[in-house]
Amino acid sequence: MNYKMMGRFLAQILSIEGIFMIPALLISLYCGDTMAVTGFLQSMLIILALTLVLFLICRGAPSVFTAKAGLVCVGISWVVLSLVGALPFYISREIPSYVDCFFETVSGFTTTGASIVPAVEDLSKGILYWRSFSHWVGGMGVLVFLLAFTGSKGQGFTMHLLRAESPGPNVGKLVPKMRKTAGILYLIYIGLTVLDVLFLAVGGMPLFEAVCTAFGTAGTGGFGVKNDSLAGYSPYLQNVTTVFMALFGVNFSCYYLLLIRQWKSVALDEELRTYIGIILVSVALIAWNIRGLYGTLGETIRHAAFQVSSIITTTGFATTDFDLWPMFSKTILLCLMVVGACAGSTGGGLKIARVLLLLKGLRRNIRHMLQPRKVELIRNNGVTVDEEILGNTNAYLAAYVMIVVVIFLLLSLDGFSVATNLSATLATFNNIGPGLDIVGPTSNFSQFSDFSKLILSFSMLAGRLEIFPILVLFSKSTWKQC
Amino acid sequence: MNYKMMGRFLAQILSIEGIFMIPALLISLYCGDTMAVTGFLQSMLIILALTLVLFLICRGAPSVFTAKAGLVCVGISWVVLSLVGALPFYISREIPSYVDCFFETVSGFTTTGASIVPAVEDLSKGILYWRSFSHWVGGMGVLVFLLAFTGSKGQGFTMHLLRAESPGPNVGKLVPKMRKTAGILYLIYIGLTVLDVLFLAVGGMPLFEAVCTAFGTAGTGGFGVKNDSLAGYSPYLQNVTTVFMALFGVNFSCYYLLLIRQWKSVALDEELRTYIGIILVSVALIAWNIRGLYGTLGETIRHAAFQVSSIITTTGFATTDFDLWPMFSKTILLCLMVVGACAGSTGGGLKIARVLLLLKGLRRNIRHMLQPRKVELIRNNGVTVDEEILGNTNAYLAAYVMIVVVIFLLLSLDGFSVATNLSATLATFNNIGPGLDIVGPTSNFSQFSDFSKLILSFSMLAGRLEIFPILVLFSKSTWKQC
Repeated sequence: MNYKMMGRFLAQILSIEGIFMIPALLISLYCGDTMAVTGFLQSMLIILALTLVLFLICRGAPSVFTAKAGLVCVGISWVVLSLVGALPFYISREIPSYVDCFFETVSGFTTTGASIVPAVEDLSKGILYWRSFSHWVGGMGVLVFLLAFTGSKGQGFTMHLLRAESPGPNVGKLVPKMRKTAGILYLIYIGLTVLDVLFLAVGGMPLFEAVCTAFGTAGTGGFGVKNDSLAGYSPYLQNVTTVFMALFGVNFSCYYLLLIRQWKSVALDEELRTYIGIILVSVALIAWNIRGLYGTLGETIRHAAFQVSSIITTTGFATTDFDLWPMFSKTILLCLMVVGACAGSTGGGLKIARVLLLLKGLRRNIRHMLQPRKVELIRNNGVTVDEEILGNTNAYLAAYVMIVVVIFLLLSLDGFSVATNLSATLATFNNIGPGLDIVGPTSNFSQFSDFSKLILSFSMLAGRLEIFPILVLFSKSTWKQC
Repeated sequence: MNYKMMGRFLAQILSIEGIFMIPALLISLYCGDTMAVTGFLQSMLIILALTLVLFLICRGAPSVFTAKAGLVCVGISWVVLSLVGALPFYISREIPSYVDCFFETVSGFTTTGASIVPAVEDLSKGILYWRSFSHWVGGMGVLVFLLAFTGSKGQGFTMHLLRAESPGPNVGKLVPKMRKTAGILYLIYIGLTVLDVLFLAVGGMPLFEAVCTAFGTAGTGGFGVKNDSLAGYSPYLQNVTTVFMALFGVNFSCYYLLLIRQWKSVALDEELRTYIGIILVSVALIAWNIRGLYGTLGETIRHAAFQVSSIITTTGFATTDFDLWPMFSKTILLCLMVVGACAGSTGGGLKIARVLLLLKGLRRNIRHMLQPRKVELIRNNGVTVDEEILGNTNAYLAAYVMIVVVIFLLLSLDGFSVATNLSATLATFNNIGPGLDIVGPTSNFSQFSDFSKLILSFSMLAGRLEIFPILVLFSKSTWKQC
């Protein structure tokens, strides 16, 4: 690893984080929250000092980046961003324990939305803004932001970074230049977010709440500004959020195709069709299963649709306590946690594209057993899938299962129930937020020990970055000088 | 599918099952259990009639078997063996519901040991013998028995059948002829079983109980003849069973290597070393975690070792109610359920050989990400592993995860807890037997609905036959005439 190169890269990333704190600082100033102002100011000073030191030390670093450097830079910078992003919470004393601050920040950037804050309405506005904003920027990626709106670092490096930070089995280039692709993605992202804010504001939601809710929706994060998540809002506002959560779970390249009027390729997209199919079937099954729990059929479907949209996109907002639903509905939600949203969206989970690839690989495997001599290729949207991508997808599943097992085992040291530990593991690793039992939608993660909170933070980071950029940080060969 | 060929094959398998019922019939006659005698006699008559009809209809069937025929024959014959093997329970009225009889028989043949019988001591001796014997013959395989001790069906077919019925990622030939290999395996199996009976008898266990317990141990099944499993036996008898369970979880080719004095290859066998390592570490962790629950350190280690050996080999005997242990110990046991025993043993689970392959594949994947140009081969015991086996192992994991998710979802319709449903899924699919909560070691599976019992029967069959022979039965192309 070339440490100078990494240091210079970290300095760039940190300076962007510092700039991102300005709106939160202004809100705190406007509201007159002295402690929060101090928190943001001191954090920005620390960032400034760190950035200057890093720039000074790392002058003259080479500009040639390898695939390895891309992976490691992504892994390291997410950890550092979270360590530093936790400072305002800590310095303002709004969250007293630094481990809790770190957990909350990781949960924000990874768009998980798992919280250790018992009552979010006690937090100051600036802090709430920073908490929700971390979802927004984490959803599309801080590094992608850096690539899209600052100087290019060469085609190879951009590709490595995008590949490591973007979710899904492979990264599609929309246009030949990766940097331009990143820019287009961010513009679509900003556009959809603004649209969400408008729809919420029209429904009578105060602007500050609308912005924060839209941040949580866009990043498929789940941090809200109310203690009861979205349960207290009007059916209109809940339905708007249902729709926008589902929209942010769609592969963003579909929106690009819509912009350039490629209607047909969007309509025939296998992943999109599967995604919509899973949502419809799940809503129908749950609505049937929870019939009688709510007053009208309309209310039943509204709650079912909201929770399905929230869980499959790994957002984690709630309009009702689904931990009280029958076991079948809860199990459907647990399964949706694993499936996740579309590749190339801001959602987490295995991703539907991967599930489709795994199923197709399995079908081929069975056919191969029946007719060993027949050679069969796997297709996606009519295009043959590279065998290497299929191999990587299988390896991803293996890594996924192993990490889930290890986290599940380590959490059990705290002694909570199987439902708590399993759902906490899945809810953090798939970047959802709430789970069942002690970590259910009306509860939070504060009861876990500090050790478990760090394990869960690892889980969130590994889930958001799709395992490997975090896993390589634990590989000996990463830290050899090269 | 050539139906005549399959019919003739089924007739052979059924006639063997009829012959296997003779000892049980004799025991029932000796004990004077009229109903049990009727049960076995009528079942044998039904088998005789079925066999004759099948032989008559299927005269002149071709002898050429394809890979597909091998898979399908294995899948079908296990289902038919269970349907017919359930008859004595049903006709003797010792288990009133036929679905329960089927569940119990599937549980026997698949060496799961999950039971719907609330008090096994109420069953007659002949029925108890048949129940335990199904473990013994299911452990090594009824079809392997057919191959080993009756006429050969040609090299190709033998290979296909052995591959489909034997557990593990690939079948090693001990000697060039597969039929001879099957014979050697069965002789080792019989030898170890006799040894187990002797050790138990020396410790004062009555011969009938010793034989049944040895059947349950050898097949890594778990059906016992006492309501409290092995809790009431002396520490000596428990320790003997701990050791023999562990022995039957070892790849049987290791015993062959010992017989031909290849000490070194056994001592260096990666899978065996990993297996022993996992057992030792798990016993140590659990003993530390449950310290204070039992009187002495010796008793603590005895219970920890027994349960670890019982679960990792997927036997399912119990000496204590491990559902009362702390969550960490229970979670270790849940993880061991997934790992399972060695390939080529009578145990179930993913198999340690597969877990090793998956881990090695994962390590290579990470290295490949860091250095994309480097080509790396995966080795096992110093020998390069075929990429096709690695691909199949990955596909196996994918199939495993999907089936577990589907079964977990379907079970949730009964409304029991996450711990019940998850552990019931894992305990049946990995052929262990007891799970946690409602299906814990002091309880049984009788509370599930008939629908769930059929799902769980499917789960046990799919687990024992390693998914594909059962999965192909659901494939349309299997049932085309060819």
